[in-house]
Amino acid sequence: MMMTNTRSDRILALLADQKSGWSLARPFYLDADLFDVEREKWFSAQWMVVGHRSEVPRKGSHIVRQLFDCSIIIVNAGDAGLRAYHNVCTHRGSQICKQDGQAPLLVCPYHAWSFRLSGELQTTRELPEGVDPSELGLRPVPLKEVGGLILCGLDEARLPDVAPVEEALLPALRLHGIDRARIAVRRHYPTLANWKLVLENFFECYHCRPSHPEYFSMNGHVKVTAMRDEQGAQDWQATVADWNQSLKDGVRLAQVRDPGSITTLKHSVYRQPIGLDRRTHSKSGQPVAPLMGLFDDYDGGETGMHVGRLSFVGGYNDHAVIFQFNPVSVQETDVIVTWLVDQDADLSTIDIDALTFLWDVTTVQDKKIIEANAAGVRSPAYRPGPYTVLEEQTANFVADYMAVMRGLLTEEPVMQG
Amino acid sequence: MMMTNTRSDRILALLADQKSGWSLARPFYLDADLFDVEREKWFSAQWMVVGHRSEVPRKGSHIVRQLFDCSIIIVNAGDAGLRAYHNVCTHRGSQICKQDGQAPLLVCPYHAWSFRLSGELQTTRELPEGVDPSELGLRPVPLKEVGGLILCGLDEARLPDVAPVEEALLPALRLHGIDRARIAVRRHYPTLANWKLVLENFFECYHCRPSHPEYFSMNGHVKVTAMRDEQGAQDWQATVADWNQSLKDGVRLAQVRDPGSITTLKHSVYRQPIGLDRRTHSKSGQPVAPLMGLFDDYDGGETGMHVGRLSFVGGYNDHAVIFQFNPVSVQETDVIVTWLVDQDADLSTIDIDALTFLWDVTTVQDKKIIEANAAGVRSPAYRPGPYTVLEEQTANFVADYMAVMRGLLTEEPVMQG
Amino acid sequence: MMMTNTRSDRILALLADQKSGWSLARPFYLDADLFDVEREKWFSAQWMVVGHRSEVPRKGSHIVRQLFDCSIIIVNAGDAGLRAYHNVCTHRGSQICKQDGQAPLLVCPYHAWSFRLSGELQTTRELPEGVDPSELGLRPVPLKEVGGLILCGLDEARLPDVAPVEEALLPALRLHGIDRARIAVRRHYPTLANWKLVLENFFECYHCRPSHPEYFSMNGHVKVTAMRDEQGAQDWQATVADWNQSLKDGVRLAQVRDPGSITTLKHSVYRQPIGLDRRTHSKSGQPVAPLMGLFDDYDGGETGMHVGRLSFVGGYNDHAVIFQFNPVSVQETDVIVTWLVDQDADLSTIDIDALTFLWDVTTVQDKKIIEANAAGVRSPAYRPGPYTVLEEQTANFVADYMAVMRGLLTEEPVMQG
Repeated sequence: MMMTNTRSDRILALLADQKSGWSLARPFYLDADLFDVEREKWFSAQWMVVGHRSEVPRKGSHIVRQLFDCSIIIVNAGDAGLRAYHNVCTHRGSQICKQDGQAPLLVCPYHAWSFRLSGELQTTRELPEGVDPSELGLRPVPLKEVGGLILCGLDEARLPDVAPVEEALLPALRLHGIDRARIAVRRHYPTLANWKLVLENFFECYHCRPSHPEYFSMNGHVKVTAMRDEQGAQDWQATVADWNQSLKDGVRLAQVRDPGSITTLKHSVYRQPIGLDRRTHSKSGQPVAPLMGLFDDYDGGETGMHVGRLSFVGGYNDHAVIFQFNPVSVQETDVIVTWLVDQDADLSTIDIDALTFLWDVTTVQDKKIIEANAAGVRSPAYRPGPYTVLEEQTANFVADYMAVMRGLLTEEPVMQG
Repeated sequence: MMMTNTRSDRILALLADQKSGWSLARPFYLDADLFDVEREKWFSAQWMVVGHRSEVPRKGSHIVRQLFDCSIIIVNAGDAGLRAYHNVCTHRGSQICKQDGQAPLLVCPYHAWSFRLSGELQTTRELPEGVDPSELGLRPVPLKEVGGLILCGLDEARLPDVAPVEEALLPALRLHGIDRARIAVRRHYPTLANWKLVLENFFECYHCRPSHPEYFSMNGHVKVTAMRDEQGAQDWQATVADWNQSLKDGVRLAQVRDPGSITTLKHSVYRQPIGLDRRTHSKSGQPVAPLMGLFDDYDGGETGMHVGRLSFVGGYNDHAVIFQFNPVSVQETDVIVTWLVDQDADLSTIDIDALTFLWDVTTVQDKKIIEANAAGVRSPAYRPGPYTVLEEQTANFVADYMAVMRGLLTEEPVMQG
Repeated sequence: MMMTNTRSDRILALLADQKSGWSLARPFYLDADLFDVEREKWFSAQWMVVGHRSEVPRKGSHIVRQLFDCSIIIVNAGDAGLRAYHNVCTHRGSQICKQDGQAPLLVCPYHAWSFRLSGELQTTRELPEGVDPSELGLRPVPLKEVGGLILCGLDEARLPDVAPVEEALLPALRLHGIDRARIAVRRHYPTLANWKLVLENFFECYHCRPSHPEYFSMNGHVKVTAMRDEQGAQDWQATVADWNQSLKDGVRLAQVRDPGSITTLKHSVYRQPIGLDRRTHSKSGQPVAPLMGLFDDYDGGETGMHVGRLSFVGGYNDHAVIFQFNPVSVQETDVIVTWLVDQDADLSTIDIDALTFLWDVTTVQDKKIIEANAAGVRSPAYRPGPYTVLEEQTANFVADYMAVMRGLLTEEPVMQG
């Protein structure tokens, strides 16, 4: 009911007022209307990792996941491949599935309307005359599988092409065996903060020393990412160079860094040593699961991948971690961490605490400091502050966000919600 | 502060876009502004059952009930009859009664302002000069008693005449002894869904087979209301015909079906057999309480009555059930079920589980499926869907709602809240 | 995004419609927009007691308190005196302190930005070029100390001069030794009601008889404040006259009653006997702690002080009580009661139940009746009612509120939030 021009204009004015390299103005973190515009323009054009192939192993396997503010069903439709649908019955709108399952048809619990795995409505007997059952299939959700990762997005017409990203990321995903992995553990860390505060935190390690003592003591890179230490930086460069030279053939990866644009998907790949003589990122630094993918020995490396703007993968020699950041409301973000191991690994023999230690303790700490950040931003006394030289990626994230928002708001009139 | 024309115009535009025979668009179930307009225009013109005569048996008996968003006090004022008042002190606005009670005066706990049962302010000593105590009586709420049922409504000027409804319903209410009943049990089923989703559910039995196994196995009519089964329908017609022929004199009721209009009250009466050799609607189908009203034997019948648009009565030979649907907020409806037995019944001898089994298990199930429906409708992916041939009454309810809303919004300018 | 003129005009129209001597219209108690205007115009010009000197005894002592919707830090900065800052880091906006503490620097837990007690940023190494660290000090909050009480306010430019108030109140604060007291107990009574309902309650004793049996039985003044009783009033006048005559030199106080204005601070002082042969306001009326301030014997007196519009002090011979009313949201007010004793008192020897009995039981009752008042006001049936002759101070409070709001809304255009 609000005039859309006013809403767009107001956000554009806020963007115009932003000082480059400084954190965002308060409305970007608190304003529900602004979040609605993000939802409509920004989120709808983002692919997000919503699951892993191994979760829908057989025809009829289906899982229920959250994609922004939509509940969706991802189903293995056999020869028809993986499909995703909105979890909303086309009859009266009931949610169809409450939980993951296995079934030959998707059946709504309300009136037992039944849908084929390919989405068509099967129940047609009681339909009134003149109603075409072919228009009552489940509403599809765009889905792509990339090396074992299931990506979904909201708006087919606005989503960027996945092909170049797939090509760029597949070598890394295959090196780490993400395409033949299974899920060992998944945990949700619901965080009461705007999604941008969550990502601003994720993109910098300046806070690692005060906030993450465990992480700080377990990663060589903190010498350059968490502090300014000339000598430390030289040491780390030497460590990385030595490590690169020591790598066997077949486990090197070309660095990729595509920042994306309004119409293309952000993605990146980099490999570096964990350092500190750690062989993998388990609690002790010692092996915690069978080697994955193409590795036939431990090289102590860590691979980071950006899969779009809201999903990230960390790969080690014997496990991998998926990070999903799902904006739920203007001040609520679901952070989901999934630990993967090789599909042939025997979960009963894996020390889950050793496997999950690093990212669990770190994500719990992040939730706490991000929520304290959000509490401060809620104060009328909050003003944007400057990103330091140790927060370059965070500054880049914010600059990218602003550029994309500006582009989306000026390219065409915003539709009304 | 919102321009009212805009609000009305927007709802009228939504109504114009509705496809006949399809469920409503999302805003009708989710939009708080639209609910405010319903409150102001639609609710304020509805009579609703709020209690039963037996709850205020003696002069000074009073009960506290919710009428839409208003707390009201219903009081037995002796010779002055039953009265209802807003539960708001005319001094500083405090709630006067927290709970049902018995007292010669209604006394506000804050400053002990006292009101006679007939509403006049009795405390006048401390009033400043120039204030007329006769203008400080309790604010009355329109009240009518119809055969033992206490009906209240919000706006005297908009409420339809009750007289024709009373005349039409009294034979059924007396047959079932509603006017000389007592309450055995009352239960609240707060349901997180728009009131229209709750009523859409109440008006159809298409969902009975998948959602209500107990109800489905206990009612003969499901052969025609819950499925399309030519043979079953013929059987059921024969059963009904036989049953009608077997009825003794004095327990027949003329069928009434007045759909109401903007200015008149919806009401209806129908009788049919429960079927399946059940004598009453207890858990086992066997008698559960003394016969009520004019019955001197069990005939296994069920009487349904619509008392306005939000209250319903089900009558059996030895008990009756009142259903109240009170819209609390745009996504919250209080469903209240009250089980009545004859006023002379000894409650200590009644098997309450047997008495309440059917409607308790069914209403608990309805709460669950309605809330799943509401969850689906909250998804941006929800779109209206077609009512089937088994949902005719639900389609009628929605058509009536739309016609009345259209009428209310066009007849006169909407007042500002 | 809302046109401010509309918002101001609407409030001015509501003010124009108010009947003098009657309670306020519903929006004043319920409307979130109106609360925002109060926040911006009315609250920002109010000094409020937020703590006591004894809470920050040494250099580096700091406490975290709520000032309206802002979390603030009050710190003892040694030679730089007491300082208050917004509890928001100037880097990325994190809350800095979670709880009271003692430290040489204020260190943000997120990235360890450190601030001197005088507010300057000490951490500057990582700042990008061109950023001036002197602009990144903690944002100051106006603070004044008056006889041991710490007052803070939001907007330096709008806050009235404290000097005349200090001059007027210091004799009473020193008589009661508030400047050399310590905190024995502090309790919060979060009350779900608009702050004006809370203060309307605080300013009258008409409700004492029905609502506060303990208070009613423990105070002589209720003969005139809680009822109209000609004989009782004469008796009480005689009691007060006798008591005044019996007072020793040095414990008399000139009565002060300055109602304040838009640009000056409300304040007042009065002394009277507790009456009923009570020596102090402990549970039994007998001494409960060492004598305070200038008292060398019990005289059974009670001193009341208004310190601005939201804070009050009650002084007895051996203890004192501070009342703080902090508006948290439109329907939520934090009521904070603090019991003070002499700084040299040994808390382990004080009977805390005897000390806190009167105001604890009374404030718990007030919370309940105020919340019932708020519940009534939420009903659409609420209408303003007349204040009686026993609610003169409440009527004055409302008249003052209306006059100040009218003045604030007409003196200048309202800024947009």
